Amino acid sequence: MSIEPLAPGAVIGIIGGGQLGRMLAIAAARLGYETIILEPDSNAPAAQVANTQIVAAYDDPAALRQLADLCDVVTYEFENVPVKAVQWLEACVPVRPGSEALEVAQDRLLEKAMARELGAETALFAAVSNRTDLDAAMAVTGLPAVLKTTRLGYDGKGQAKLLRPEDAESAFAAMQGQMAILESFVHFDCEVSVVAARGMSGEVRAFDVSENEHRNHILHTSTVPSGLGPEAQAEALRIATAIAGHLDYVGVFAVEFFAVREGDRHRLLVNEIAPRVHNSGHWTEAACAISQFEQHVRAIAGLPLGDTQRHSDCVMENLIGDDINNVAELAGEPNAVIHLYGKSEARPGRKMGHVTRISPRTEPF
Amino acid sequence: MSIEPLAPGAVIGIIGGGQLGRMLAIAAARLGYETIILEPDSNAPAAQVANTQIVAAYDDPAALRQLADLCDVVTYEFENVPVKAVQWLEACVPVRPGSEALEVAQDRLLEKAMARELGAETALFAAVSNRTDLDAAMAVTGLPAVLKTTRLGYDGKGQAKLLRPEDAESAFAAMQGQMAILESFVHFDCEVSVVAARGMSGEVRAFDVSENEHRNHILHTSTVPSGLGPEAQAEALRIATAIAGHLDYVGVFAVEFFAVREGDRHRLLVNEIAPRVHNSGHWTEAACAISQFEQHVRAIAGLPLGDTQRHSDCVMENLIGDDINNVAELAGEPNAVIHLYGKSEARPGRKMGHVTRISPRTEPF
Repeated sequence: MSIEPLAPGAVIGIIGGGQLGRMLAIAAARLGYETIILEPDSNAPAAQVANTQIVAAYDDPAALRQLADLCDVVTYEFENVPVKAVQWLEACVPVRPGSEALEVAQDRLLEKAMARELGAETALFAAVSNRTDLDAAMAVTGLPAVLKTTRLGYDGKGQAKLLRPEDAESAFAAMQGQMAILESFVHFDCEVSVVAARGMSGEVRAFDVSENEHRNHILHTSTVPSGLGPEAQAEALRIATAIAGHLDYVGVFAVEFFAVREGDRHRLLVNEIAPRVHNSGHWTEAACAISQFEQHVRAIAGLPLGDTQRHSDCVMENLIGDDINNVAELAGEPNAVIHLYGKSEARPGRKMGHVTRISPRTEPF
Repeated sequence: MSIEPLAPGAVIGIIGGGQLGRMLAIAAARLGYETIILEPDSNAPAAQVANTQIVAAYDDPAALRQLADLCDVVTYEFENVPVKAVQWLEACVPVRPGSEALEVAQDRLLEKAMARELGAETALFAAVSNRTDLDAAMAVTGLPAVLKTTRLGYDGKGQAKLLRPEDAESAFAAMQGQMAILESFVHFDCEVSVVAARGMSGEVRAFDVSENEHRNHILHTSTVPSGLGPEAQAEALRIATAIAGHLDYVGVFAVEFFAVREGDRHRLLVNEIAPRVHNSGHWTEAACAISQFEQHVRAIAGLPLGDTQRHSDCVMENLIGDDINNVAELAGEPNAVIHLYGKSEARPGRKMGHVTRISPRTEPF
């Protein structure tokens, strides 16, 4: 694989048309690249700012052929792209990150097993494919525990909590026959994530760890700096680097952790891996010279990775559903950086945009 | 005129498809607005990132009708838009800034006369419509002086220097019969500019003054902070505020000054007024929470103006012609924020992009 960088004017294909694709397309434009979005929904957020949209299903053979013919490199903006589609593309055009990362990220069991194999801690877990498995799994994890489908879950969808043994029946039913994983409930002090990039040379650069608060299973805020000490931050980076190296990953990715307090330190348990730019990295566009979106474009285009230094402290807050009605008020706040996604309908629970409030650094550079 | 802000999803028309329109369109998208570009050149820089392009001349009646029908507000990204087209539009749809600012900015005589009328200094100047005028004008300005067409000049085009009386003949010929203005040559210490916005409420907010270096009549670098003292900076803001108020201006504009040293202070002479976002304000996207592009969108959309505080020091450098070949190298510099314009052909003298190098503030907040 050559690391001659893509020249200005080169074409980047993006599978998926949501807000992550939108912000990637803008970052690509700023680096002089053209973008083509593959997305069945016409006028999708990403398509509004991209050069071209191919309106088709993610696994439409003719559309994939077209994408391969028109693009110099292809990437994806969400992890539920069909692996087979990416594998087919890989035979025709560089796809970064490739299908292997996608395969692991689509399966909570593979994901956690890989994290363990690489020396990272996770919650206790066991695979659940039938009702009997669930009883055995409860013996492994203890209670409370969380039963999750291994695939296609996000923002709390496909999850059921087990507080007492009697909850097993309804939790199992909620999986609707899908392969599941039971995970011990982690009494964490806070949730944190590291957003990092691995370049084609193997170099890894991470943004500062953010501390994340969820509400109704949806990210509410990311705060930087986090409450982690330097050892825990170094550990987060070590784990992220090991994962990216193991997957021969190219591009930006996120690792979400539960941070469990032990004395005056934090122990980190890998919760999820996202093979893409991540909501908990949106703050980078407001508080760093190079955003996670530009960093991803740099990585997949073979440009040098950007500096991840932070010029400001910040808190990123998601604007969910009707929150978008507060935009004029938010615009009146000093140092509030607003970013909306061009979605016409503000459904409850829908991510409509985000706002990052920046302030001078409290720690020196 | 109501100051109810435009809601997300509203449509902003932009006359002109160059890099300024491109950066405005991206800023509009980030605030959730759609954009339509009126520009005869298809695949123009702005059109690549906008929702829609109307491919037509700036004064095409059917295209203007379409723009008025589709847009909630219209703006322009360069000052050579036909005034008549904007006047026609103003009867149908809000145009911000309006035709009055355009008219003044298109005529160096009107521009300088207005600056004088508002109490600002300028170079000595006189109108030149024929060869006899030129002799009289030289008596006003002295030599050296610069003869410029009053209209449609930019980046040094339509200008001729007069060092000695014998230069009058060739300088006059270079005007090709167009109305001209003779300006005394100013022995300045530096060139500076202020980029400011006036909102619909009349509020004016300025970014910090930048110090600008030109090469071959094209902006080469803008540096912030400038070498101006606080009095001169306050004077720049006073003049900008007076001009914007006089024109009942809405949006971002720039005033370029010559700064002449007097002891340990600077005297400011107005050189040019640009009724639009300005090349010397590109640094704001890298060193402020709110860029000049977002500020313009906020102003014309009726949103509160953003904070203009600067989180970093910076130097913006234009990438002209072949400079774009250095992008991979620039991308390797820490804290270099690159912005390219999507132009396919790197002609000599053509603005292809810019890079802003940021560093921690040397002065406290």
